Amino acid sequence: MLELRLVQGSLLKKVLEAIKELVTDANFDCSGTGFSLQAMDSSHVALVALLLRSEGFEHYRCDRNLSMGMNLGNMAKMLRCAGNDDIITIKADDGSDTVTFMFESPNQDKIADFEMKLMDIDSEHLGIPDSEYQAIVRMPSSEFSRICKDLSSIGDTVIISVTKEGVKFSTAGDIGTANIVCRQNNTVDKPEQSTIIEMQEPVSLTFALRYMNSFTKASPLSDQVTISLSSELPVVVEYEIGEMGYIRFYLAPKIEEDEEMKA
Amino acid sequence: MLELRLVQGSLLKKVLEAIKELVTDANFDCSGTGFSLQAMDSSHVALVALLLRSEGFEHYRCDRNLSMGMNLGNMAKMLRCAGNDDIITIKADDGSDTVTFMFESPNQDKIADFEMKLMDIDSEHLGIPDSEYQAIVRMPSSEFSRICKDLSSIGDTVIISVTKEGVKFSTAGDIGTANIVCRQNNTVDKPEQSTIIEMQEPVSLTFALRYMNSFTKASPLSDQVTISLSSELPVVVEYEIGEMGYIRFYLAPKIEEDEEMKA
Amino acid sequence: MLELRLVQGSLLKKVLEAIKELVTDANFDCSGTGFSLQAMDSSHVALVALLLRSEGFEHYRCDRNLSMGMNLGNMAKMLRCAGNDDIITIKADDGSDTVTFMFESPNQDKIADFEMKLMDIDSEHLGIPDSEYQAIVRMPSSEFSRICKDLSSIGDTVIISVTKEGVKFSTAGDIGTANIVCRQNNTVDKPEQSTIIEMQEPVSLTFALRYMNSFTKASPLSDQVTISLSSELPVVVEYEIGEMGYIRFYLAPKIEEDEEMKA
Repeated sequence: MLELRLVQGSLLKKVLEAIKELVTDANFDCSGTGFSLQAMDSSHVALVALLLRSEGFEHYRCDRNLSMGMNLGNMAKMLRCAGNDDIITIKADDGSDTVTFMFESPNQDKIADFEMKLMDIDSEHLGIPDSEYQAIVRMPSSEFSRICKDLSSIGDTVIISVTKEGVKFSTAGDIGTANIVCRQNNTVDKPEQSTIIEMQEPVSLTFALRYMNSFTKASPLSDQVTISLSSELPVVVEYEIGEMGYIRFYLAPKIEEDEEMKA
Repeated sequence: MLELRLVQGSLLKKVLEAIKELVTDANFDCSGTGFSLQAMDSSHVALVALLLRSEGFEHYRCDRNLSMGMNLGNMAKMLRCAGNDDIITIKADDGSDTVTFMFESPNQDKIADFEMKLMDIDSEHLGIPDSEYQAIVRMPSSEFSRICKDLSSIGDTVIISVTKEGVKFSTAGDIGTANIVCRQNNTVDKPEQSTIIEMQEPVSLTFALRYMNSFTKASPLSDQVTISLSSELPVVVEYEIGEMGYIRFYLAPKIEEDEEMKA
Repeated sequence: MLELRLVQGSLLKKVLEAIKELVTDANFDCSGTGFSLQAMDSSHVALVALLLRSEGFEHYRCDRNLSMGMNLGNMAKMLRCAGNDDIITIKADDGSDTVTFMFESPNQDKIADFEMKLMDIDSEHLGIPDSEYQAIVRMPSSEFSRICKDLSSIGDTVIISVTKEGVKFSTAGDIGTANIVCRQNNTVDKPEQSTIIEMQEPVSLTFALRYMNSFTKASPLSDQVTISLSSELPVVVEYEIGEMGYIRFYLAPKIEEDEEMKA
């Protein structure tokens, strides 16, 4: 039997809104560690990894490891019916082919049960090794989101270049070119607005803006986003989920960067 | 001659927004009692009854009973041109084939006259007998609106079941099922947020969500909605209009409930 | 070399939003006087004239008179990437076929350069003589915008009639007619809400509402709009841009007014 009670139910609502466009169907895995998901996007280019640690739930009962296949669009439809202050409980009986989402209003006046059919989904869990990155940028998530959106109105790809001075986002398209530089800025009294750069060596990588824009749908989860870059590795775009976990997006850089910019 | 001056003109704006989707053309009836309307929706399934009592108008002159056929879409277009704080006066000369809506801004700086052509509409006035209902639910109109909208994302019909404990709204569809229970809750200090159930006997009836969602367009008129249910009668969904009247929607329950839920 | 630094960059953003729908491509002219534009709309019916005086810029360097052809849609796309509090600098090198817009965030943490290709555009500069007008109406820009929008839901043209008492906006269409009268109103303590009429003689002219609605896109630039009317001249609809300039729209009145109203 599975019963996971999340007092801050809005976190789960935001998680679904963050990934439902990228991933259509996916297995949610429940274990003693927590409630997690790992899935490729539908075009098999980007990878999403989600973890909500068991300690973050008010009540966490998971008698045995369980993998539940869900259509994320349908799951998002149901979670959208939860109020922003509702407590959400995820329930499943052993061997059942359904999962139940229970929404309780803060004053307990309104209680809703939404039952959803589960799906069989083939998936393989990729091991993602811990890596050293050439540069790690931590910046306001709203700023990163704004930059990706702005550059999309000019071009299709973004070159992210990190130097000691700051991080530069560049693009080019039919109507012209754009460069946006964010300087390092350690705002002590407003840490959520700071931009902090940890750099081993300068790095410059090219990515498809379409995916970056998808990733920024997770911005409501966290004031800050962390972007980890290395020449040989997929970029990791990470949003922390309160103190209970994270959502991480992985995307391989584009090669033949010059070719790309001409296209 | 007809001259009806309504200081709180926004009420008339809200009335039109509430019914213009359901009813295309209708006769407004003016008499010594008040300004009223009774009309079937265009698919002849639901009935709307509106009453604005003469006492609610600052000035109410109606020399003889008058029935004015109007296209509600066009009337709504004109009323949308009134400011929310405007005083609205409805004027018609005897024998004229037009009606005039006059909008006065609160400081009298701006005065608008909108003249609309009247239509000949065949209609028969149904006598609606006062009935005893098995259960009457009074609840926040925003809550009822939210529930109908949420359930529409899952299914096409709603089963409304009333017991002593509360009122349950249920639906089922391809992606799963949903049950939302609202408990009785007599909030003395915030009466507009209370949910009060008067029950003679338990009742459970099925309705098309499409119509329920249409009815909830009247929510801006009142903080509370009253839902009157009996097995043998159409449900009545009523919104009070200040202290001057009401708008009531009537809808027959669906029979062969089990059949419906399978479809 | 050209370098124009505008501390209140949002003004330039608003200017582009005001004219980009009306004008597709246009030459911006830079001289010692200021940064200006004069262009016909794409159907050659309305004329737009913009002036931002050099004194309004924090820094204004323009070594020689320069005419820069720009696609206003693309320019608006780039300016939309500037924050509302950003300082905007327009830069162009002599003989270059590009212009650069630089956006600096108020705290200098984020600096963006957008480079846009220039176009060759044939244009002739019309001399617009100063004229005496029969009537000049100065009124809240939001009010004028609301009136044009409201009348558009009834008809296609507006008759603007000025008398000593006030200004009347009228239209007619299939569903009826509308007249909106704004009275003169010199609100001393809230000058931005006043309606002031300077009248030499009564005047009544007909205009296409489609263009009037386009002009009102400039409303965010100024609390007040000035409408100058004469029987023999195009109407001038003017919005001041802070203390540094203006945007003026010119539109010829419709002749055979009765014919038009029948159509």
